[in-house]
Amino acid sequence: MGEMPAKQDAPPKVMALDLPQAALSEANQAYFAKCQEKLGFIPYVLLAYAHDDAKLSAFAAFYNDLMLSPSGLSKLEREMIAVAVSSVNHCYYCLTAHGAAVRQLSGDSVLGELMAMNYRAAELSARHRAMLDFAVRLTEASDHIGEADREGLRKAGFGERDIWDISAVAAFFNMSNRMASAVDMRPNEQYHSQSR
Amino acid sequence: MGEMPAKQDAPPKVMALDLPQAALSEANQAYFAKCQEKLGFIPYVLLAYAHDDAKLSAFAAFYNDLMLSPSGLSKLEREMIAVAVSSVNHCYYCLTAHGAAVRQLSGDSVLGELMAMNYRAAELSARHRAMLDFAVRLTEASDHIGEADREGLRKAGFGERDIWDISAVAAFFNMSNRMASAVDMRPNEQYHSQSR
Amino acid sequence: MGEMPAKQDAPPKVMALDLPQAALSEANQAYFAKCQEKLGFIPYVLLAYAHDDAKLSAFAAFYNDLMLSPSGLSKLEREMIAVAVSSVNHCYYCLTAHGAAVRQLSGDSVLGELMAMNYRAAELSARHRAMLDFAVRLTEASDHIGEADREGLRKAGFGERDIWDISAVAAFFNMSNRMASAVDMRPNEQYHSQSR
Amino acid sequence: MGEMPAKQDAPPKVMALDLPQAALSEANQAYFAKCQEKLGFIPYVLLAYAHDDAKLSAFAAFYNDLMLSPSGLSKLEREMIAVAVSSVNHCYYCLTAHGAAVRQLSGDSVLGELMAMNYRAAELSARHRAMLDFAVRLTEASDHIGEADREGLRKAGFGERDIWDISAVAAFFNMSNRMASAVDMRPNEQYHSQSR
Amino acid sequence: MGEMPAKQDAPPKVMALDLPQAALSEANQAYFAKCQEKLGFIPYVLLAYAHDDAKLSAFAAFYNDLMLSPSGLSKLEREMIAVAVSSVNHCYYCLTAHGAAVRQLSGDSVLGELMAMNYRAAELSARHRAMLDFAVRLTEASDHIGEADREGLRKAGFGERDIWDISAVAAFFNMSNRMASAVDMRPNEQYHSQSR
Amino acid sequence: MGEMPAKQDAPPKVMALDLPQAALSEANQAYFAKCQEKLGFIPYVLLAYAHDDAKLSAFAAFYNDLMLSPSGLSKLEREMIAVAVSSVNHCYYCLTAHGAAVRQLSGDSVLGELMAMNYRAAELSARHRAMLDFAVRLTEASDHIGEADREGLRKAGFGERDIWDISAVAAFFNMSNRMASAVDMRPNEQYHSQSR
Repeated sequence: MGEMPAKQDAPPKVMALDLPQAALSEANQAYFAKCQEKLGFIPYVLLAYAHDDAKLSAFAAFYNDLMLSPSGLSKLEREMIAVAVSSVNHCYYCLTAHGAAVRQLSGDSVLGELMAMNYRAAELSARHRAMLDFAVRLTEASDHIGEADREGLRKAGFGERDIWDISAVAAFFNMSNRMASAVDMRPNEQYHSQSR
Repeated sequence: MGEMPAKQDAPPKVMALDLPQAALSEANQAYFAKCQEKLGFIPYVLLAYAHDDAKLSAFAAFYNDLMLSPSGLSKLEREMIAVAVSSVNHCYYCLTAHGAAVRQLSGDSVLGELMAMNYRAAELSARHRAMLDFAVRLTEASDHIGEADREGLRKAGFGERDIWDISAVAAFFNMSNRMASAVDMRPNEQYHSQSR
Repeated sequence: MGEMPAKQDAPPKVMALDLPQAALSEANQAYFAKCQEKLGFIPYVLLAYAHDDAKLSAFAAFYNDLMLSPSGLSKLEREMIAVAVSSVNHCYYCLTAHGAAVRQLSGDSVLGELMAMNYRAAELSARHRAMLDFAVRLTEASDHIGEADREGLRKAGFGERDIWDISAVAAFFNMSNRMASAVDMRPNEQYHSQSR
Repeated sequence: MGEMPAKQDAPPKVMALDLPQAALSEANQAYFAKCQEKLGFIPYVLLAYAHDDAKLSAFAAFYNDLMLSPSGLSKLEREMIAVAVSSVNHCYYCLTAHGAAVRQLSGDSVLGELMAMNYRAAELSARHRAMLDFAVRLTEASDHIGEADREGLRKAGFGERDIWDISAVAAFFNMSNRMASAVDMRPNEQYHSQSR
Repeated sequence: MGEMPAKQDAPPKVMALDLPQAALSEANQAYFAKCQEKLGFIPYVLLAYAHDDAKLSAFAAFYNDLMLSPSGLSKLEREMIAVAVSSVNHCYYCLTAHGAAVRQLSGDSVLGELMAMNYRAAELSARHRAMLDFAVRLTEASDHIGEADREGLRKAGFGERDIWDISAVAAFFNMSNRMASAVDMRPNEQYHSQSR
Repeated sequence: MGEMPAKQDAPPKVMALDLPQAALSEANQAYFAKCQEKLGFIPYVLLAYAHDDAKLSAFAAFYNDLMLSPSGLSKLEREMIAVAVSSVNHCYYCLTAHGAAVRQLSGDSVLGELMAMNYRAAELSARHRAMLDFAVRLTEASDHIGEADREGLRKAGFGERDIWDISAVAAFFNMSNRMASAVDMRPNEQYHSQSR
């Protein structure tokens, strides 16, 4: 367990910007300790935000509400959206980290590959196909989204709150993909071999 | 002042999803009251998130840190990025709300129009041109961003933290533009005439 | 009225090309005087063309027939097309000048903003939506236009001549947008505050 | 010569819109007679506009000034721009009619093919390459055109008026390509075999 | 007939790479002699591959099976696909060589022009329109092709093997177009005037 | 070992087209046996082509010359091009099969992921960066490739034959990606876990 403090003192190269880690609040220190305990590592995206304690807090709160709080979408469905969006944007960090999450949550390593490569090649339920078609269209041509697109989701069985959640996850990864590419964020090595 | 409670009881049509406003925490009630007092209205984006108190809190915290906390970028510069990005994505909500912010913060109504229509038609300093070129390239082709792009910002005088902030604002509006288009968020009418 | 000759003697900077104004024919002098009288200014696009009297005449005749002569499309509808097309092409001159025209002809300042930002966010009649969808598709992918697109206009109630006129206005602004961007045409300042 | 009046009474199918030919002014009748005499046919684009005498006059005046009046660009150079732009837009009418013009004016049938297929595959002088690069960039991404592009033309030897003329021809064919595609304009058969 | 060996000894400039012709196998020498006899020339694409005897053999075998062996698609139909795909990719070599083939096989010089300029402007049977729509969609957005696209071909009367063949020809010219552009392959002059 | 004949008699579902396997020549039977022996399976792309013995032979000969014969490019470099091109085209079959090849040949499982996700995120030598930039540009905009692009490869140390080989591999996978997507080719399951 001696490795964790070492990592915080001399953090690994997690991005192309030279921004030293800030002194972290007790809450964020505890959060990092919990990551280390549960995952075995601190996701580098969190280390990238750790140059500013307030930004780290805001990002983590926003992310955890989005991806982990109760929703009509399962955690796996949210991760599928994350990866399908990241495939369009060719985001190395998010494809690696969230591809691993799809493999882990689904217990299906091939599904993770399919989301990262081309979700249209997967055999999906009508629900999942509609969900991902909306997410990718929002990624590629958000100014063309209209009532017909929302109606498509309703016909596939999604409720109003579900539409919000699909939109919110797809929109968030359009932010995260760009943030990761802008600063050349590097994924933790552990993701590559997880759940293969 | 009687209008504010009325608005909260029967909120205006702020988006295409039918999601009733949640019971808000005291903190969020206070935040809304402060908006009403300072701006004369509650931005509809906040009312759109208000169907879920936790999501409203997370969004407001993230947004306020990004756009209002200390940074090497002025508030006006952050708003210029917001509008230039929203112009690429043709986001009606963000162009309206943040176009008004550029007009107000700059005292230059034409600058607001230029950011919304085509920032390349504006007479900009080398600093501002580099900043917006990066933000728009991150919007249009994030997978092509590389060290040469970051070096361009450094040569224009931006530091490591500034590059983070330019990236973070540009990335955020790629999220917000998509969220607004996905749910057809409507801007408050007041923005249109502000600072003309 | 002393301002007008002054403007002709020392015209304002209306574009990035250094082309002195030509000696104008009596007809064009009268046209400029009429602009000054009716509008309070001479639109800079006309001053841009005024480096060559014949080109000015040809442009003005073509433009006035297109936008002002009798048609199944109202003047407002023609201006709506102009602005929706200019939004795709991000043309600063045309968005400014014709955005003002939409505001003025409609008496609805928000409609002008909607056309300039994203016509899909406006609440439009089926007629107007079909008209603008055709105009924007012609702008973005003219080689894909076919009989099905024309049939769509017919089903929305447009006649053969109306289809010609929608096409002609959309096509014209694809020319004017490019001409304005090519020479960096500047709009008259007055447009910005008109009909707000 | 009996065929010409016959053609006017019962004009060939020149487009997909059903718009009968208007009674033409004496000037336009004379213009058509001159076309018949000089070319052996009336270009169908003129017959397409002939449903409205005023539109025909305005179009012909604008076109003839643009393509035939004195300019620092030769008539062949203007036709080369016309065809290179029409190749991007895949306009059947303009590629056919103006491809024939390039073949005729240059006496080089292969040059006509190269302009229609891909001008980058032609062995061109630096002047012509710069001219066509500008015209095609204006076609594909007019909102990105800026002072650097104009400077490129100046370095290739073009004057201010030449830049206007290159821009005007490229912009015009972005209009004509769209008009032709919108109404499915058909080229006269004679063009295909001309100057092969 | 003395010209043929001369051509092999000192081959014409067929591409931008400086790669001398290899010693050819007897089979490839016989193939070139047959080309010379039947066509009157050796297609430059074959001379381009002739820097390596094995590559020439593999290319010619693959090409001849694809374009000349028995198929539910006629040779003309395969050439129509070749030209429509090459039009999207603006490939000078393939548009020239295969445009000539369409003219020759169809006896319709205008059809060759239509395929090279914009197949959507041609009056095509439902079969041919479906065939070319699929081929062009495969060219422009192969990752979006799905079962609905294949069903469209089946509804237009194509069998399983026909779908393979349409796909194979369209895919092949996406290779050949890129190979020709990459090395600036030049077409034989004879193609330009063939079957006009 | 009884499974292999079984597979040939009742081949697995390798694509969306219903095309029974043809009687194979002795040479192709031997080729399949060799695949089974060396790889432990027959790549499904070969089973997809096996509905026609001549097409299988032509494809295998072309492919093996391209990817396995002597070249200034190592086998790994050819596979890196294959995967980078397939990433642009989002081809599930090729990303899976050739991603495995990059992992195997490089002994670096992360390099395989980087090629499939975004080669620009990899730390590459100048040689490899130039090679992949050319291959991807040829994929995305082949009609813009010109002498400057070839000169870029020469400056990175590539010879004339190397430029041919880079072009040939990149062009080939633009064919194979499209063929795989057109018929929904499925990769063998074994690839997913290879060399992780």
